[in-house]
Amino acid sequence: MLVLSNDEVARLLSMEECMAALEPMYRDYAAGRALLSPRVDNIAPTGHAGGGYYGFKHMGGTWPAQGIQALRINSDVITHPLVAGTRRRVKVPAAGGRWVGLVLLFSTETGALLAMFPDGVMQRLRVGAASGLGLKHLAREDAATLAIIGSGWQAGAQLMAARAVRRFKEIRVFSPRKETRERFARDNEIRSVDSAEQCAAGADVILAATSSMVRVIEPQWLKPGMHVGCIKTEEIDGEVLDRCDRVFVHDRKQAKSYTNVLADTPNVKEEHDGGWWKERKGRYPDLGELLSGSAPGRQRAEEITCFANNVGTGLQFAAAGAAVLRKASDMKIGTDLPDDWFTEDVHP
Amino acid sequence: MLVLSNDEVARLLSMEECMAALEPMYRDYAAGRALLSPRVDNIAPTGHAGGGYYGFKHMGGTWPAQGIQALRINSDVITHPLVAGTRRRVKVPAAGGRWVGLVLLFSTETGALLAMFPDGVMQRLRVGAASGLGLKHLAREDAATLAIIGSGWQAGAQLMAARAVRRFKEIRVFSPRKETRERFARDNEIRSVDSAEQCAAGADVILAATSSMVRVIEPQWLKPGMHVGCIKTEEIDGEVLDRCDRVFVHDRKQAKSYTNVLADTPNVKEEHDGGWWKERKGRYPDLGELLSGSAPGRQRAEEITCFANNVGTGLQFAAAGAAVLRKASDMKIGTDLPDDWFTEDVHP
Repeated sequence: MLVLSNDEVARLLSMEECMAALEPMYRDYAAGRALLSPRVDNIAPTGHAGGGYYGFKHMGGTWPAQGIQALRINSDVITHPLVAGTRRRVKVPAAGGRWVGLVLLFSTETGALLAMFPDGVMQRLRVGAASGLGLKHLAREDAATLAIIGSGWQAGAQLMAARAVRRFKEIRVFSPRKETRERFARDNEIRSVDSAEQCAAGADVILAATSSMVRVIEPQWLKPGMHVGCIKTEEIDGEVLDRCDRVFVHDRKQAKSYTNVLADTPNVKEEHDGGWWKERKGRYPDLGELLSGSAPGRQRAEEITCFANNVGTGLQFAAAGAAVLRKASDMKIGTDLPDDWFTEDVHP
Repeated sequence: MLVLSNDEVARLLSMEECMAALEPMYRDYAAGRALLSPRVDNIAPTGHAGGGYYGFKHMGGTWPAQGIQALRINSDVITHPLVAGTRRRVKVPAAGGRWVGLVLLFSTETGALLAMFPDGVMQRLRVGAASGLGLKHLAREDAATLAIIGSGWQAGAQLMAARAVRRFKEIRVFSPRKETRERFARDNEIRSVDSAEQCAAGADVILAATSSMVRVIEPQWLKPGMHVGCIKTEEIDGEVLDRCDRVFVHDRKQAKSYTNVLADTPNVKEEHDGGWWKERKGRYPDLGELLSGSAPGRQRAEEITCFANNVGTGLQFAAAGAAVLRKASDMKIGTDLPDDWFTEDVHP
């Protein structure tokens, strides 16, 4: 059983490799040759001194073509502070100053637990890769200007993915905290601007990558020929979607998601009611349908297209995980633990 | 992060301790103070040379009173051979001759992964403990004769649990393979008999503990004053249930279970269609309601009572797991792995 660190996963998986690993999985999934398990969230009171609530989330995916079953687990203390006037969802690093997110990979051939590693690096790469694949098939070929709303960890992955599929001449970033966005701009050799409007004006592609729980893309920003993307449903709303000619979500079926809230947990309705996604469930095709060709991508230069990452799936971890395992084995990277610890000689 | 072996779990948890750990959990659960996540089964083709299919199952439970979130995972290659003329569900030890079942325990206070261990010993103890708690509240106080159908690993736990709550004067066992049942009888100092009818005749309590996929308790065996139990729904059927005056299932709500079958997987309908359980969902109260007193147990000596373990829950592993963790810490048992391997410094 292989234990990998986030640093090792980062060495084993580039954005390009992640996109290449995910693309055939989406086609298999669209053809009924890969399986999701529902995303389940358990929400309960926490004993954590700083308040908030406890959230336990897991999502699985079975990809027989690669012989991999993945399970991604998040075990978090969650709060909803106001940051620069906007409500955010913040996971508290309550485990000795660290967070808890894990990926487990199993073999569908032997059942064995093959590997276990923190989810952070892979989680970011697969969110970026999904957006990149959407962008590749939806944005105009000649898209030249990119606007990024948000300057955190996820924004970096959106930038990497966008750069992997289009040659942008200008890239701009806006986020409310000046210092953060200027550092992000410096690190990525792009331009920091002082307002979201300035960032969006004249862009061919707008990508939101924030932890905001309210809309960050304004409908009036959308102009013919544009592509917009977001990494969570709250970043856009029905008004934004209604201005788009062609909308794809990440996954239609993962609508199969279950939130179990224990009675005396602090109110999290705002986070879990789903907004437009709940109302419009099943209305938009998804990335699998786009990549397999069963739902057409951009047809005309003047269309406004949208890729909304409504929810992640365990299959993304199965696909990226299979690629990481192959390379880890080739490069002999990771810490091996005794298989006997994670198997048993009694019938379970 | 503590790694425990099955042997260590066995040292840390007796049947009596397991029952004591589970009882308050069922009361909290009945009062809405503990949370399940649905049981999910993903069924897909396997590359295993011996055929069968791949089954990935997980079930979770959150018990805030103990600060524990449990997730129990099974990753199996499964076949359905005929054994002594009866169809059985058999998990193939395809992981180097071993099986793969794991329990993960997390802290609801910090999110941290606290422990990981194979599920075998605990899985058996909690199945036995649930039956034992049912028996304790449903069988006649003066029950003197016990009949056990089945002589495997689970039958042993049923016997331990039954002995923990009643003083039986005679205990008999029947199972189709003579050698196995005679060894079981010898090991447990009970009597082996040559037919199921002989085993059941005149018994005060009949407990089925088999891997059978068809009925093993015949309706005409049931007489006034008897208690019957089973560890899977297939062991009994509607005819058996209709002869009982008072039926309890293990868990009504875990009816929330999801089976996702990939299109080209060999037919497993027989295993997953649910039988009487599906038709009678919600009709019978459950162990939480029995233990919390909201549904009454046996009222008269001549009643026929039944406890049907329809499905397991992740909360059983949370409760038994919390007890094991406390004792492991006191006794300094287990292998500690670096917490840094299972936490991260990037926001997941």
